[in-house]
Amino acid sequence: MRRIRIFVAYDGTNYCGWQIQPNGITIEEKLNKALNRLTGEDIRVIGASRTDSGVHALGNVAVFDTESPIPPERFSYALNQRLPEDIVVVKSDEVPFDWHPRYQDNISKTYEYHIYNAQMPNPLKTRYCTFVSFPLDIGAMREGAKYLIGAHDFVSFCNIRTNTQDTVRTVYDLTIEKKDDEIVLRITGNGFLYNMVRIIAGVLIRVGRGFYTPEKVKEILEAKVHTSEGATALPNGLVLVKIDYK
Amino acid sequence: MRRIRIFVAYDGTNYCGWQIQPNGITIEEKLNKALNRLTGEDIRVIGASRTDSGVHALGNVAVFDTESPIPPERFSYALNQRLPEDIVVVKSDEVPFDWHPRYQDNISKTYEYHIYNAQMPNPLKTRYCTFVSFPLDIGAMREGAKYLIGAHDFVSFCNIRTNTQDTVRTVYDLTIEKKDDEIVLRITGNGFLYNMVRIIAGVLIRVGRGFYTPEKVKEILEAKVHTSEGATALPNGLVLVKIDYK
Repeated sequence: MRRIRIFVAYDGTNYCGWQIQPNGITIEEKLNKALNRLTGEDIRVIGASRTDSGVHALGNVAVFDTESPIPPERFSYALNQRLPEDIVVVKSDEVPFDWHPRYQDNISKTYEYHIYNAQMPNPLKTRYCTFVSFPLDIGAMREGAKYLIGAHDFVSFCNIRTNTQDTVRTVYDLTIEKKDDEIVLRITGNGFLYNMVRIIAGVLIRVGRGFYTPEKVKEILEAKVHTSEGATALPNGLVLVKIDYK
Repeated sequence: MRRIRIFVAYDGTNYCGWQIQPNGITIEEKLNKALNRLTGEDIRVIGASRTDSGVHALGNVAVFDTESPIPPERFSYALNQRLPEDIVVVKSDEVPFDWHPRYQDNISKTYEYHIYNAQMPNPLKTRYCTFVSFPLDIGAMREGAKYLIGAHDFVSFCNIRTNTQDTVRTVYDLTIEKKDDEIVLRITGNGFLYNMVRIIAGVLIRVGRGFYTPEKVKEILEAKVHTSEGATALPNGLVLVKIDYK
């Protein structure tokens, strides 16, 4: 028996998120089925990040245990033959049997939130960007973003349905860049609460629009109450870029 | 009666190209139906470029004639309410009644062909890029591309099913740029034959791979025979960027 780790990229548009559920097709389910077809074993992957319905990934991580003699690095190729085009196993390797993708010291995760900011929508951007038609003030968004960097109780920036007790997280970095009509928020931290990146994106879009002042971000953070869920930005703009294990 | 011009962007993935046909849904058909719902008139648009099945556009152009009192610039908004999300009328204006989108002096058309060049496919790129896993030599591709600039008989670079007599076209510019894992061929000319851009892209990919020398492009051009159709690159990488009327 060996433990194999896989790095998984997917277009989340056609999936009800990562985690298996009764009423829709999920990434986890597709991976389990491909592993079953490949090895004949009843394999259940353990994922690092349970991305929401419609959210994309370039580097989610998962592990599974197998008796298969396939060399660790060959699993990526073998699985890609058995997966739909919108799920790709980018890399595979072997890890120690007690290695768990969620319970590791010094994990850092990087997400990007993509906004298409123009007068008219662009049909080649709708799948991977949220469309915002009113002009966004990048300077104000950056000013608001700086309050979020560091260790904070992010309870104001998570969905009320979260079942986590400890809502303190550390944001290592949060940058906002604009290229042509596309704005990218890139955020790195030691972990993110349920809907946290989408609520941060939504609040910063309100700042960019002038609906909130940059200081309002600090106010929301310090209030420590669930009031910002209405701002939750749409899932299609979100990508889990990578998970680093130090 | 007035003649209205529309600039149309679309994700071609789910369509059998621009032109109406019996066995599939087309962009032209969706526009005609939206215009019918909007005006009550039986309107048929006349398009500038009959893009192939699966090909995208940011700025195709079409005209139609209408008795509707809607102000010319409002047609874009009114049509977008009645079109699927993957077709967007970016702009609309009024043109003289004898203005035809195909028969104008000094038309220039710009296409881009997108290649995702990496070891593993990226599911966030498959819709708008052709995936090439072997490393491409951009220098060699640029060297091959320079033979295509200028006025030439491009019969070697068109599909044999073309029904055009005059196969001379002028390529004003052809650039090849690489950013991260994406290579973009950008080509501007006074017009393009059936499959011409996709065959050029396919031949240049063969050059980049080292399968053809750059000089082979000149040889193919001068041979003036249909031999390169096998190289036709997939439609999903192609975008009609814009049509300029001087």
